[in-house]
Amino acid sequence: MKLSRLGEFGLIERIRRGAPSGRGVRIGIGDDAAWVSHASGSSLITADLLIEGVHFDLKWTSPFALGHKSLAVNLSDIAAMGGTPAYAVLSLGIPGNLNSKLIDEFYRGFNALAKKCGVALIGGDTNVAKSLIISVCVIGHPPRRPVCRSGAKVGDDIYVTGSLGDSALGLKLLRQKRSGAKRNSIAQLLARHHQPAPRLAAGALLARRHLATAMIDVSDGLLQDLGHICGASNTGAVIWNEQLPLSPVYRELAGKDGTAYALSGGEDYELLFCARPRHRARIKKLQALAQVKITRIGNCVPADRRITVLDSGGKPLALRIKGHDHFKK
Amino acid sequence: MKLSRLGEFGLIERIRRGAPSGRGVRIGIGDDAAWVSHASGSSLITADLLIEGVHFDLKWTSPFALGHKSLAVNLSDIAAMGGTPAYAVLSLGIPGNLNSKLIDEFYRGFNALAKKCGVALIGGDTNVAKSLIISVCVIGHPPRRPVCRSGAKVGDDIYVTGSLGDSALGLKLLRQKRSGAKRNSIAQLLARHHQPAPRLAAGALLARRHLATAMIDVSDGLLQDLGHICGASNTGAVIWNEQLPLSPVYRELAGKDGTAYALSGGEDYELLFCARPRHRARIKKLQALAQVKITRIGNCVPADRRITVLDSGGKPLALRIKGHDHFKK
Repeated sequence: MKLSRLGEFGLIERIRRGAPSGRGVRIGIGDDAAWVSHASGSSLITADLLIEGVHFDLKWTSPFALGHKSLAVNLSDIAAMGGTPAYAVLSLGIPGNLNSKLIDEFYRGFNALAKKCGVALIGGDTNVAKSLIISVCVIGHPPRRPVCRSGAKVGDDIYVTGSLGDSALGLKLLRQKRSGAKRNSIAQLLARHHQPAPRLAAGALLARRHLATAMIDVSDGLLQDLGHICGASNTGAVIWNEQLPLSPVYRELAGKDGTAYALSGGEDYELLFCARPRHRARIKKLQALAQVKITRIGNCVPADRRITVLDSGGKPLALRIKGHDHFKK
Repeated sequence: MKLSRLGEFGLIERIRRGAPSGRGVRIGIGDDAAWVSHASGSSLITADLLIEGVHFDLKWTSPFALGHKSLAVNLSDIAAMGGTPAYAVLSLGIPGNLNSKLIDEFYRGFNALAKKCGVALIGGDTNVAKSLIISVCVIGHPPRRPVCRSGAKVGDDIYVTGSLGDSALGLKLLRQKRSGAKRNSIAQLLARHHQPAPRLAAGALLARRHLATAMIDVSDGLLQDLGHICGASNTGAVIWNEQLPLSPVYRELAGKDGTAYALSGGEDYELLFCARPRHRARIKKLQALAQVKITRIGNCVPADRRITVLDSGGKPLALRIKGHDHFKK
């Protein structure tokens, strides 16, 4: 059914019926504002805007995956503070001639991840637009002490969850339209791009056990996001290139690009964090509970040494720290 | 300066420096998520998405007014629950070739209203986009019992704050490009369109004193928004056409359109609410404190009588209830 036939209020009613509810939702979709209860007297709040033609292309992503990702990137921000997500507000700008089936699929993807992570969809806004616009705001419960970007100290270890570079490498290969034998491998990389897994358990455990001194999620590329930690914490960093966690598929397909996508690719949605060296054993043990690999990839050094990536022989790689900037060309 | 030169992080730093802070902001702009404290154990949350070419045209609105309005429409939703706004999250999609001066002006308008209403800007997202996209989420403190759309009873009076129709009539006249003697009058109407005043004091007083049984803000047109109250409350409504509050300028310029814009125009951002007849005197007195006129315009009747507008002779006006639907044509 075309949205122009379903109408705004028909659409809202469909959204309302499918929306996952949750504890503490006192008024959800359908009034002027939602009303929610809090476990503690404070909240974590984050927002992301995804725009067709900038962040995604409906030719390359399924509406279900897009729904998943729209929520996942916000949950990743809550994870990076060590929090637990609770409520989501979703605003959409939708081309009027879009088939409502696509929007249903989008919500199915969004709601599936929401349910899995205990998130209630409590409100939002729907509008007509020339291209698809997705704006998500997530409200979560903080740990007793949220983990900021500013707590790293010289001497801290630097860790990252999961593996790096799959998302960006997958996107590059997709754009090259490679076919044949590698297609299954590329599909594996692209699954990381289209349906990233927010590291909520790892983030919450690291915060609750006071293990992470500083934390951020890797959305703009490892080096750029590390730069945010170093800037806020007033430290530099040394990263060991050969310690970067790469998936088997990444190793198979990266070729001469080596670790370039792991260092600067972006959209990994892994957690990058710093911790005191005395906590190495506790962090190692935490992997099983968080169900994600955690790799030590470097350490914090004085700020004047900036950020260096060392090769296996201990020599600095010559690299320009690249990452994503939406406005600079 | 072009945004492409300022860069994403240059822009974020500018936004951060200008952002109004407020009580309870423990982490504001510049980390993965904001962290805020709550007066009570619950929050009101609302969101609106404004899209260039759909909701506004930069030829017809100043960036300052647009910043004001982007926040005002959300504050109006908080007002309609009887709440007090506290925090705002603002995400922007910005054309890369836009002059950063325009964005500065936008934030100046947004921040001016935020300061006036005690709202802290705590986070958001900035992206490049083909046209300007504005997504705002506001978090507020609820009254002890937020006012929903569903509490009206048969026999309740129906009231509206301020005056109706100025915004829509102004927009219509602007599109007709009328000039000459009427220009000042049209400018007065357009001020209502471009810089609506959220009725926060009225909403909060009506909720705290348990006077409003149901409340909504008039964004899609009086009759359509009244329809939401009637639908949620399972009542009908009678509106007295000649009691509709019209501004002197509206009366001057509406001509043969009469009350059409007041009934169905939209974007008034006045509060429409219901109350028991025994509270008439208390509501009358409340006008001075809330600094806004409050007019009784009808009453709630059984649901099977639907919504009727009566002329001065008590005869129903023949009208199709129109209002805004983003998708229907």
